[in-house]
Amino acid sequence: MDFELKALTEPGKRMVDLAEEHSANFAATAAEHDREGTFPIENVTAMKKSGFSAAGVPVEFGGMGVTSVHDCIVALNRLGRGEASTPLAYTMHLSRTLSTARALRLAIASGNQARRRRSEEMLKKIGAGELFITVANSERGADVRTSKTLATKTDGGWLFNGTKTFATGSPAADVLAVRARYINESGEERMGATIAPIDRPGVKIMNNWDGLGMRASGSHDVVFTDYFVSDEEFDDTGKYGEFNAPFLALGTNSSMGLSSIFLGIAETAHELAISAINRRDGSLYPMNQTTIAENEIDLAAARGILSRGAQYYDEFYQTGVEFPVGEIDNSPETAFKMIKNGACTKKFVMETAATIVDRCVTLYGGGAYVSDNPMAKLYRDVRAGQFMQPWARNQAIEIIGKVALDLDPNNY
Amino acid sequence: MDFELKALTEPGKRMVDLAEEHSANFAATAAEHDREGTFPIENVTAMKKSGFSAAGVPVEFGGMGVTSVHDCIVALNRLGRGEASTPLAYTMHLSRTLSTARALRLAIASGNQARRRRSEEMLKKIGAGELFITVANSERGADVRTSKTLATKTDGGWLFNGTKTFATGSPAADVLAVRARYINESGEERMGATIAPIDRPGVKIMNNWDGLGMRASGSHDVVFTDYFVSDEEFDDTGKYGEFNAPFLALGTNSSMGLSSIFLGIAETAHELAISAINRRDGSLYPMNQTTIAENEIDLAAARGILSRGAQYYDEFYQTGVEFPVGEIDNSPETAFKMIKNGACTKKFVMETAATIVDRCVTLYGGGAYVSDNPMAKLYRDVRAGQFMQPWARNQAIEIIGKVALDLDPNNY
Amino acid sequence: MDFELKALTEPGKRMVDLAEEHSANFAATAAEHDREGTFPIENVTAMKKSGFSAAGVPVEFGGMGVTSVHDCIVALNRLGRGEASTPLAYTMHLSRTLSTARALRLAIASGNQARRRRSEEMLKKIGAGELFITVANSERGADVRTSKTLATKTDGGWLFNGTKTFATGSPAADVLAVRARYINESGEERMGATIAPIDRPGVKIMNNWDGLGMRASGSHDVVFTDYFVSDEEFDDTGKYGEFNAPFLALGTNSSMGLSSIFLGIAETAHELAISAINRRDGSLYPMNQTTIAENEIDLAAARGILSRGAQYYDEFYQTGVEFPVGEIDNSPETAFKMIKNGACTKKFVMETAATIVDRCVTLYGGGAYVSDNPMAKLYRDVRAGQFMQPWARNQAIEIIGKVALDLDPNNY
Amino acid sequence: MDFELKALTEPGKRMVDLAEEHSANFAATAAEHDREGTFPIENVTAMKKSGFSAAGVPVEFGGMGVTSVHDCIVALNRLGRGEASTPLAYTMHLSRTLSTARALRLAIASGNQARRRRSEEMLKKIGAGELFITVANSERGADVRTSKTLATKTDGGWLFNGTKTFATGSPAADVLAVRARYINESGEERMGATIAPIDRPGVKIMNNWDGLGMRASGSHDVVFTDYFVSDEEFDDTGKYGEFNAPFLALGTNSSMGLSSIFLGIAETAHELAISAINRRDGSLYPMNQTTIAENEIDLAAARGILSRGAQYYDEFYQTGVEFPVGEIDNSPETAFKMIKNGACTKKFVMETAATIVDRCVTLYGGGAYVSDNPMAKLYRDVRAGQFMQPWARNQAIEIIGKVALDLDPNNY
Repeated sequence: MDFELKALTEPGKRMVDLAEEHSANFAATAAEHDREGTFPIENVTAMKKSGFSAAGVPVEFGGMGVTSVHDCIVALNRLGRGEASTPLAYTMHLSRTLSTARALRLAIASGNQARRRRSEEMLKKIGAGELFITVANSERGADVRTSKTLATKTDGGWLFNGTKTFATGSPAADVLAVRARYINESGEERMGATIAPIDRPGVKIMNNWDGLGMRASGSHDVVFTDYFVSDEEFDDTGKYGEFNAPFLALGTNSSMGLSSIFLGIAETAHELAISAINRRDGSLYPMNQTTIAENEIDLAAARGILSRGAQYYDEFYQTGVEFPVGEIDNSPETAFKMIKNGACTKKFVMETAATIVDRCVTLYGGGAYVSDNPMAKLYRDVRAGQFMQPWARNQAIEIIGKVALDLDPNNY
Repeated sequence: MDFELKALTEPGKRMVDLAEEHSANFAATAAEHDREGTFPIENVTAMKKSGFSAAGVPVEFGGMGVTSVHDCIVALNRLGRGEASTPLAYTMHLSRTLSTARALRLAIASGNQARRRRSEEMLKKIGAGELFITVANSERGADVRTSKTLATKTDGGWLFNGTKTFATGSPAADVLAVRARYINESGEERMGATIAPIDRPGVKIMNNWDGLGMRASGSHDVVFTDYFVSDEEFDDTGKYGEFNAPFLALGTNSSMGLSSIFLGIAETAHELAISAINRRDGSLYPMNQTTIAENEIDLAAARGILSRGAQYYDEFYQTGVEFPVGEIDNSPETAFKMIKNGACTKKFVMETAATIVDRCVTLYGGGAYVSDNPMAKLYRDVRAGQFMQPWARNQAIEIIGKVALDLDPNNY
Repeated sequence: MDFELKALTEPGKRMVDLAEEHSANFAATAAEHDREGTFPIENVTAMKKSGFSAAGVPVEFGGMGVTSVHDCIVALNRLGRGEASTPLAYTMHLSRTLSTARALRLAIASGNQARRRRSEEMLKKIGAGELFITVANSERGADVRTSKTLATKTDGGWLFNGTKTFATGSPAADVLAVRARYINESGEERMGATIAPIDRPGVKIMNNWDGLGMRASGSHDVVFTDYFVSDEEFDDTGKYGEFNAPFLALGTNSSMGLSSIFLGIAETAHELAISAINRRDGSLYPMNQTTIAENEIDLAAARGILSRGAQYYDEFYQTGVEFPVGEIDNSPETAFKMIKNGACTKKFVMETAATIVDRCVTLYGGGAYVSDNPMAKLYRDVRAGQFMQPWARNQAIEIIGKVALDLDPNNY
Repeated sequence: MDFELKALTEPGKRMVDLAEEHSANFAATAAEHDREGTFPIENVTAMKKSGFSAAGVPVEFGGMGVTSVHDCIVALNRLGRGEASTPLAYTMHLSRTLSTARALRLAIASGNQARRRRSEEMLKKIGAGELFITVANSERGADVRTSKTLATKTDGGWLFNGTKTFATGSPAADVLAVRARYINESGEERMGATIAPIDRPGVKIMNNWDGLGMRASGSHDVVFTDYFVSDEEFDDTGKYGEFNAPFLALGTNSSMGLSSIFLGIAETAHELAISAINRRDGSLYPMNQTTIAENEIDLAAARGILSRGAQYYDEFYQTGVEFPVGEIDNSPETAFKMIKNGACTKKFVMETAATIVDRCVTLYGGGAYVSDNPMAKLYRDVRAGQFMQPWARNQAIEIIGKVALDLDPNNY
């Protein structure tokens, strides 16, 4: 595929190669999992075994040592081409892995030994293929600033109670990233987060995901009932009801990672459309040419915004190469700009991917409207992108506009 | 619903009232038929019983006497709001009914007694609720000018052999409209058509429809094997491989009728989105307001082009009121302009309907991405519109451009 | 031009015929007035002489007796095709004429003799070709709800002080429609309006219009300095800072009239593009075909929304045929719906017209980018449409969204 | 401006710094040159003096040694922000400079001494600020494959006869790049090109440019009458009527350079719109926020596709760093892919820039529609982009579609 995204670092290139292998394998069982609505736990097992689940882990802890978010999004793009549900779960795992690796670098720089120990421990487990992290953060009637899930103080820790939705990949989770509202000692409402094991009492995966698309993503509800989280496992993540800009800026890699999967969906649809046109000797039909051309242009734009967005992110936040650790610009202003740029990327790529797939459906012809046709699956799958947080379509527009007009989104 | 389409004639108003009743009833069982992929034969039975299937039949033959295509599209709009699969089948039936009524008027004017008799006979049966016509015209690798189904001469008639696709409503068909290629006595390749009974040997409905959407439309393949059609039942419809412009111009009412169903889908999605916004007290959120506004504008435009397109059609072709029968302008130039205008209408409404539903999915939120949610169904259903013939999206653009540039589509 | 807008009433047909004559004449001098930035007063003189300026005046007062807003917009469409600046001024005049004729009907029905006398007097003058009304309402930093122009009480009347902008057609004005803020006897801030003669002391047309386009529209600033308006000439138009919905609903005919002029611009551009294509034998080039097709579709949609919007308006407000005078639904809810529908029409037509002209610029080729090319003029002119009040683009979206979500725009 | 394009090499960074200086200076006189339609020769003089006109010249010949096309487009972006006409001319000069530097590298590698000498000579003159190249290639009724200008053989050279249009920057030209049709010794129709001095008899600049926008670009007609070009100065550029793919692929840097100027226009419009919003305290108005957000997203996409397109180009063609000279992939297939990618970039950026400026006009308000307003100038200027070759909008779509479908554009 000419003009496609390409890894820039050596570890990144190895990650992309591995992604292409996994992608081909995952594609082979995709239709069946889609039909049955089952999560392919075997895909996660394979990624643990191949070391792919340890891509973001430093080499010294058994990982591939990828630090470039740019290269991660290239790998996610390749996964997305083959099958899009598994990489949704993997993105969450990868994002947490990268955050943990970064936290380790900061802990070393600042001499925070407890933090260092915890980070190393987690990275070693991921490096050994023993740990797959998924996220259970979405809730009905809540957004990134709020939660109805409540953490109440108990001896040596917290009890979590609440229901999470869209917990993608939860059937394969070893640990779950969860956030909750809590009241701190000063009586202030705060948001807290934990990454806690699935095999502890009080957590139940509801196995109720039955989506229009992304049917193999295992995006079930998860219910917490007096689920215990120790003080050590519990982190404060900011004021309740407010955007924690530096924290969210860090999460921008998820926005871009998810987008990259959907670019992969669009690329596959485009390839399928070209094949279909050639199969019926349609390449001389001008309307096919113009529609294909519109897709090529949009693909180039989507790749461009994604590649640049990811490089920009790397430069500021992730690689730890370009900037001396400790000199990170952690101001809310800079963080909101990163968030804005991530939201621009996600909004553009997710919508453009859907537009491309829609054109491919037209080019493919009536066969694309038959239930078990691969194009029909892509059409259902691609629509998920605009919902995903952060930032769903309309929320993206809102925050981009405010930040661009120098308004503090926490005040307006 | 303010600014909605409204019938202009008295019989049309009665037809719309009846459509609203049927629509409510059909909606009640829509989800189940969608899930199972079954065609609701009971809906056709109900339309036969209520007289709705005889809407286009003159009063003297037991019908409702509707002659305005405009008013028919208003009725189809109402059906589309409740459930969209049944009206797809009904549009085909209605279009043939209207053509037959028009053919009768012309036969009377021209004194063609055989034609008059055949038309009256069919209209009486439809008037009595005994006849429901569906269409089996689509084929893989053929378009409106061609057919791979072959009619070969036999004693007193023709033998049909071939496979048709997307035969919407076929499970409820009493008769099927079918076209085929044949060789006439001069050895010339021609296209012919028939409306022939389903209960005759040699026709098999394959019950294989399993669509992404419009799952209750019964759009099965139909296989003809030495199916006999008598000379009387067989009509020549023009040169093989060429557009028969006057014939296709007449069929423009199907283009508009189908479009109107999809406007109904969009209207329902819009209402669902507004309800969802109000349910979560979201009406003050500016992004909801702007997205709703975009839908309102597009709905107004879709209603406008559809209403004007249908009135324009009525003026030229259908009502038999504005023009003295026998003075119809049947020139290919005029016919191609009618075709162009119908294609403009269909292209605009079908795409706009899909755009509106897409916005509604966003407004509705993640719930719209769950399999059994009504919005998810609308999202799947609405995509069918752009495929439908005449004119699928890209073919529409092609013919509109040629006619507008005064090129004869049969030469270029 | 097939599928074009057509008048529905006999007086309307006469008006359209006359519009076509004027249009051809106005076109002949358009380039020069555009270059010089001069207002063609001779065009207004011609419209007074031909009786066209009296189109909306009842026959008994010397007018053409047109009551259908739909037919007025058809006439404006024809004017717009030839030259777009003069009809901008004419629309304002026509809108006030129609309002006055309607006010007369209501005054007769309600027995308000003073109102009747004033209305008759004005209509007679317009009928005699003695009166051309233009509007000086826009102001920097104000919108339809507010004004910085102040009317202060003086003996027997009011003194107006303030500066108006975009007073289109002011060089040809016999009277000016002006609104101002005032304080009533209860100390309440209100909006008031007058239609007052230009030849009275205290009003100065600044002759400073130098636009990007619509250069012959004479859209100068107008300065009022202790300009006297008698009590009789002064009308209250509602609470300061609020939308007066019934009043604005009435003004919806201006929104649609203005839009129709821009449809005319788009139609002319489309014709020019087709000619240019044919001149260079380009009709077989597929990209020309597809671009022309896109225009055809958009033209059909723009005509559809405009035609339907105007008919809908006629039905509720204007013709005095469908509803018994005195039973007008004057509720704010209904009025806001009319406003919404007018805003939908204007938003769609103004943007679509600009899109069509933009495509025509592409089709025409590099010659369209030369200063004195007619296409370059259309490109500059067509951009004016989205600014015009009511409703400029973004304000349109805002009010449409609120009304559609059942919010009272005066509260939110 | 956050997320803006940034140079990647050291010489590139110096070039961008200098561009920013020039940009500020050029902006100061832009309005006057626009009004008068005069070409700012003083801008070219300044660029010669500062060394900016020698940016692409190797350091050993007195230049800045910039080899990265990516960095050149960043510099052009900065110029475009201040004033867009001068950089149009400069892009042509720069593109020829870069081609000459590349030709020198190839001549050295291949041992072609004549070519080496000619290239060095030209680069030295450019390095010394003595030579500014402009292009006179466009013609009415011709495209990149053809020419009506004829070169006929004469003693020791060729006589050129013909008329060129849109010869941007011609008033400042020391030499002109011109192409012409000729018949070679085998009687075959071919295309040839030369870079020939302006001060030679037989060339006349017509000083007739009077554009809608880009009024200071001096895009005059140029007439050649028995203009003599020596055999040495004359190069064959391929078969008449065919795309010379490797040659056109090389020219892709012009496509991207031009696009980058228009990105600069869009960025300036965006900044002006934000200022205007803040000036009237409009940042809390939701419609302003959403419109600004749409611009931010589109700016990010335009920067992304441009930055990636240019880097991709550098990798294959220009820098001479990543690939050993002599191992360039010069196959037509690869060349057409480069062309396709350049065309994607240009189509997207040029249209997106126009869309952004259009939104800015809306955000700015009615003041933007006044003749001498900076926004009005940007609106006129930005429309030029879609015309520019290679590739004007519709031609871009055509060639992209064909190449993507593996058709050889020379056969279809």
